[in-house]
Amino acid sequence: MTTAPRFDVLAIGNAIVDVMAAADDALLAREGLHKGGMALIDAERATSLYAAMGPAQEISGGSAANTLAGLAGLGCTCAFVGQVADDQLGEVFAHDVRAMGISFTTAARPSEPPTARCLILVTPDGQRTMNTFLGASQFLPASALDASLIRDAAILYLEGYLWDPEEPRAAMRAAIDAARSAGRKVAFTLSDAFVIDRHRSDFLDLIDQGQIDILFANDAEIQSLAQIDSFEGAVAAIADKVPLLVVTRSADGAIAVRNGERFEVAAEPVDKVVDTTGAGDLFAAGFLAGQTQGKDIETSLRMGAIAAAEIISHFGARPTVDLKALTAQKLG
Amino acid sequence: MTTAPRFDVLAIGNAIVDVMAAADDALLAREGLHKGGMALIDAERATSLYAAMGPAQEISGGSAANTLAGLAGLGCTCAFVGQVADDQLGEVFAHDVRAMGISFTTAARPSEPPTARCLILVTPDGQRTMNTFLGASQFLPASALDASLIRDAAILYLEGYLWDPEEPRAAMRAAIDAARSAGRKVAFTLSDAFVIDRHRSDFLDLIDQGQIDILFANDAEIQSLAQIDSFEGAVAAIADKVPLLVVTRSADGAIAVRNGERFEVAAEPVDKVVDTTGAGDLFAAGFLAGQTQGKDIETSLRMGAIAAAEIISHFGARPTVDLKALTAQKLG
Repeated sequence: MTTAPRFDVLAIGNAIVDVMAAADDALLAREGLHKGGMALIDAERATSLYAAMGPAQEISGGSAANTLAGLAGLGCTCAFVGQVADDQLGEVFAHDVRAMGISFTTAARPSEPPTARCLILVTPDGQRTMNTFLGASQFLPASALDASLIRDAAILYLEGYLWDPEEPRAAMRAAIDAARSAGRKVAFTLSDAFVIDRHRSDFLDLIDQGQIDILFANDAEIQSLAQIDSFEGAVAAIADKVPLLVVTRSADGAIAVRNGERFEVAAEPVDKVVDTTGAGDLFAAGFLAGQTQGKDIETSLRMGAIAAAEIISHFGARPTVDLKALTAQKLG
Repeated sequence: MTTAPRFDVLAIGNAIVDVMAAADDALLAREGLHKGGMALIDAERATSLYAAMGPAQEISGGSAANTLAGLAGLGCTCAFVGQVADDQLGEVFAHDVRAMGISFTTAARPSEPPTARCLILVTPDGQRTMNTFLGASQFLPASALDASLIRDAAILYLEGYLWDPEEPRAAMRAAIDAARSAGRKVAFTLSDAFVIDRHRSDFLDLIDQGQIDILFANDAEIQSLAQIDSFEGAVAAIADKVPLLVVTRSADGAIAVRNGERFEVAAEPVDKVVDTTGAGDLFAAGFLAGQTQGKDIETSLRMGAIAAAEIISHFGARPTVDLKALTAQKLG
């Protein structure tokens, strides 16, 4: 008999501080940026792009950490594993995660490079274009993950972004094995169509081997993964291989497919889309909160839509309201 | 014959990054904080208070630097002098000032302490309670101010906050002398009623000696300076001693008194007061922009009210819209 897990969700992700600035399309064009995407950049490029950006705000980010912030706001118990450096941005990241009541014990890395940052340009249409300098985040060692922590969480949540750097990729593979042998569920978010381009065969192998219980994707990502140029075709191809698939479609809502059964939800109305940063992360938060709290799939999808709508109505990818109260009010 | 100054305004101020978090009144009570005030804190207190705060956003601040950000947004040419450390928050501050087109050439300080930060708790009523760790900012040396820079600016703008630490106080005194002997105008903002408590006789001496051409204050500050428990009484007492006095009164608008003649403006309507951080700083920006652009006193007051209304409608003390366009539209 196993004891009840101490955490609802343990997430492993990049530990990143977002550096967000308003930008126009001309700046994106001048800097050769692909609107809506995430590009990895080196220190030199980070310096030159930062110099070209307008006045910015620093807000803690990182895809999986954003999802945990949403989960914590919805009353779930959470733990985070990610690598910061021993510097001011690392302190900012650690403070903001812990201030949400999330357990975060990964030791800061004492040497160079500095804490990861993501330079995010937000255009007037609310779209975000992300440029990530991975810094310390790419050196997350497998030793940061102890097996007891993984056994202590009902769901292990992983972001595809972490597949880019070598050390975290190895750490995630070990974590998946540990979770599966402890009988825990593994949730995985595909993160970005370009990430999938770089790691498609790895991701498909994980799925084919039954390592993933819950797969999160958006429209572009599911088509990239399946290499099928049609939403329905791609969903059909992947849904067969995972017990639970959740796919978001921006303004067109989201769907879930569980063992062949399909569920849908409309997008939650928003007065004005200010900044789409974190929309997918918070959708995953709402959905997983529903699942860990025993809600049905429709309600879980609705919770995802509500959390996503909150995050796109303001700057930054961390909730600024009481998500629990908001969700209770919206669900009625 | 002197040449036309290169800058409309040169400001000397604390170089501070604001660390802003939502807070409730209970947290203020637990931490013994005086709502609406500014307290100086040491490194130990900064650490303990930060730990008690919720998730935060980092946005460049500093009273005089906020005013310059407003002035730059209104089309004025500006320069800033202030001390950051050679660290990540120092880079953030320098980036954000320069990204507004403001000249900032003060060299970062290579040793401890770190760049100044202000822990700001914003309550649901929109009030901000500020706790400043002065860090590197308090070591601004007089040598950072060269006389040619001061000669190069039509207005020298100083914040009362800088009177607390010893080195910047000496630097400001030298700057005032340099500005006066170059025939430039000196503008001074009283900053905070508690700052005035600490330096009343210095401030009154400056005023009595005719060193200040334009004095900015709010309701509480003018009463503290005059030690008169009545708005009208305090204004009457001080207005006699400065060529141009500008006093803001939050929701009750603002007044100016120039050589005995009094002008008034109502507060600009705001849908919802989100965060009053920077209201006084941006009022000063709008007013000074009007003055440097040859506007009359009424119009300058109106420009102050418009800039202040923009800043209190969102988190953070730096403008998030095109202030020039907003002002042109509002002035009609």
